[in-house]
Amino acid sequence: MKKDIGIGLLGLGTVGSGVAEVLVTRADSLAEQAGLSLILKKVLVRDVNKRRSVKVSTNLLTSHPEEVLSHPEVDIVIELIGGEHPAKEYIEQAITNGRYVVTANKEVMAKHGYELLSLAGKHNADLRYEASVGSGIPLISSFQQDLAANKISAIHAILNGTTNYILTRMAQEGLDFASTLKQAQELGYVETDPANDIEGIDAAYKLVILSNLAFRSKFVPQDVYREGISNIAARDFLYAKEFGYAIKLLAIAKRADDKVEMRVHPVFIPQDSQLAKVDGVYNAVEVETDLAGKLVFYGEGAGALRASSAVMADVLAIARNIYRGVNNVPELRLNQRVTVKPMSEVTTRYYLRLNAPDRPCVLAQISQVLGDNSISISSVIQKESDLAAQTAIIVIMTYPAEEKGIQKALKQLRQLPVVNEVSNFIRVEV
Amino acid sequence: MKKDIGIGLLGLGTVGSGVAEVLVTRADSLAEQAGLSLILKKVLVRDVNKRRSVKVSTNLLTSHPEEVLSHPEVDIVIELIGGEHPAKEYIEQAITNGRYVVTANKEVMAKHGYELLSLAGKHNADLRYEASVGSGIPLISSFQQDLAANKISAIHAILNGTTNYILTRMAQEGLDFASTLKQAQELGYVETDPANDIEGIDAAYKLVILSNLAFRSKFVPQDVYREGISNIAARDFLYAKEFGYAIKLLAIAKRADDKVEMRVHPVFIPQDSQLAKVDGVYNAVEVETDLAGKLVFYGEGAGALRASSAVMADVLAIARNIYRGVNNVPELRLNQRVTVKPMSEVTTRYYLRLNAPDRPCVLAQISQVLGDNSISISSVIQKESDLAAQTAIIVIMTYPAEEKGIQKALKQLRQLPVVNEVSNFIRVEV
Repeated sequence: MKKDIGIGLLGLGTVGSGVAEVLVTRADSLAEQAGLSLILKKVLVRDVNKRRSVKVSTNLLTSHPEEVLSHPEVDIVIELIGGEHPAKEYIEQAITNGRYVVTANKEVMAKHGYELLSLAGKHNADLRYEASVGSGIPLISSFQQDLAANKISAIHAILNGTTNYILTRMAQEGLDFASTLKQAQELGYVETDPANDIEGIDAAYKLVILSNLAFRSKFVPQDVYREGISNIAARDFLYAKEFGYAIKLLAIAKRADDKVEMRVHPVFIPQDSQLAKVDGVYNAVEVETDLAGKLVFYGEGAGALRASSAVMADVLAIARNIYRGVNNVPELRLNQRVTVKPMSEVTTRYYLRLNAPDRPCVLAQISQVLGDNSISISSVIQKESDLAAQTAIIVIMTYPAEEKGIQKALKQLRQLPVVNEVSNFIRVEV
Repeated sequence: MKKDIGIGLLGLGTVGSGVAEVLVTRADSLAEQAGLSLILKKVLVRDVNKRRSVKVSTNLLTSHPEEVLSHPEVDIVIELIGGEHPAKEYIEQAITNGRYVVTANKEVMAKHGYELLSLAGKHNADLRYEASVGSGIPLISSFQQDLAANKISAIHAILNGTTNYILTRMAQEGLDFASTLKQAQELGYVETDPANDIEGIDAAYKLVILSNLAFRSKFVPQDVYREGISNIAARDFLYAKEFGYAIKLLAIAKRADDKVEMRVHPVFIPQDSQLAKVDGVYNAVEVETDLAGKLVFYGEGAGALRASSAVMADVLAIARNIYRGVNNVPELRLNQRVTVKPMSEVTTRYYLRLNAPDRPCVLAQISQVLGDNSISISSVIQKESDLAAQTAIIVIMTYPAEEKGIQKALKQLRQLPVVNEVSNFIRVEV
């Protein structure tokens, strides 16, 4: 019978420090719940001499990954260094060494999830990743277990707190993207290289992870159509409001028959929808299912404490299995029929903002181009004529149309002499 | 090695028929997920000759509980007859017979949960009850597993769809309670005896189940302070709105130190709070935790399909364990320190609606009584004077005060010559 459960930690950054702190400060309560004490045996850091606020004994620190991955007393390896490499290789090695693994790494799970879970299955080593999506919001376990009997038809989710914070501030204060981003960076809400958040890369990783659970598939980030939020102007929020919409960066996955469309891009969503009301750094995931109906999960999707809740849930689940001497590695059961629907076949409504000379027949020519591509207009507003420049802003909302058609129309509109500029183009979800 | 997993069903009512239908119509997909086929072996019904719309072979039906509970090929007994007796005894017998049990029975789990889970532990038989609270919303598993490392400080929840539907209609249409209830009954949303819903009994059962998970305790329904919604008048909604509040029947559990207050009663909650926006038959559970922060779970809390999602999640979890030959019965780990805080010690704000003669000094005397009991007034509106009867309506919002003091004050106000009537009294949650 084991006396305790050994934990090896890879990374002692924000989340790593949070997890280490929880392991130390609530050791008694965790032991009570796990059946055995959880003991931190070794921690991989880049610099063992760096001063740290978290109280981890310096003789636990090492800069040699092997000392964690092959430590004879480590049962569970927690990977919190992030990024694709060498995190992926560490996880592989831990599994191959017969360790259980808990990770918060969305990039690795989105890019290599199927491969790693298969490897884990082969070695009877549970690989858990609750913290990789929505931090402390119970999503992975809900998809794996609670929704198991359901057919999932759609996921609409706000999965990136940074972009949601920026869009919320733009909406509330009428600010432009660049200045809002700058403020968010000054407040420390955005990393030095903001592309991962701003361009929707982070949200796409998370969408892939949820979609693979929802549709039992092995999608990768390249399967997701992706657009960021940097093109959104203050005036787009004004028009959105006028039409009764909010602007959010949504991660969307929809299944029709065996085709799944996955996309991350800014959308207009009705102001009174639940996702429209998710403000600031909060995340929310709306799931449409056939048995359970529509479910919404809501909470903070980032932060050391939030992530440590999910990491520790995974650690406790594994620890309980170790204590009971059982193995609980879920089998991967792929649905081989499911394929990716190309973006060109996706159908949505569209919002178009154009800049055009303020003269007769402009709208007629624009409508003609749209009509030629089977796109019907549901409403138009034309205003803010610039008398000096003699230009007008034309805002068009369309009925549902295929992406293929709209892209062709956009190209034609850009070439139209009566169109100065296609200023923006945002999809509408209803 | 087992060839299939035998299911015994107790009850073929609304939820039972839904579960039977799912078992039959998606047998292939369930088998794929469980690793083994799930075969319905026997179904307990009251009348085997009754015509039913669900396609269950009549030779599976029996009116003798023993034929399900002791059926040699039944591995999992699903209890869906509801009510306390004989459901509790059937569950006990199934466990004692070494069967796994899945139940949707909130009454049995609220009243006898600890006893039954202990019995199940003794027999190494998993007893699962995800459908007992919030139907298809993943609550039990989230509390058991995902929040395991957290300290939970508060639960605020809308757990009864019927009362939320009635309150939503009253708020939206200015109707009185009696007529709204009648309409809801005509639409089939309320059972013949509405007391279970209207008086908050159903919500209290569910709150006990969640509280026992959140605080690792063995509370029973008597530990919950409970008031129903039948006293709420159309004009209470008007005043609520004027003060910026919505009226909801909330189930509330809060922990401070080792004392837990549990209560189900109508409350004023800020109009812009998330729970205020939960309309119609939807349920929502807001949980405050130290690590994961604030989480909200939202979905439909009733209906045959919704419940069958949760029941089948439990069945699949057990089936996977049977397939893998492991036993996964969670140990009960009570926190012995936690006790119930008496309602008299609970502190909230209050809304009071009084009817009084329309003459000077009335408000002075009322304020005096409140002040004598250490209750401070935050705002007052006096209006709608009835000129003929010379009476006025006085609405008072207080600052936080102890229930003990407010109850004493209410008694004194009722005896005050200048008060015709204490018309209503609703607690305020902020």
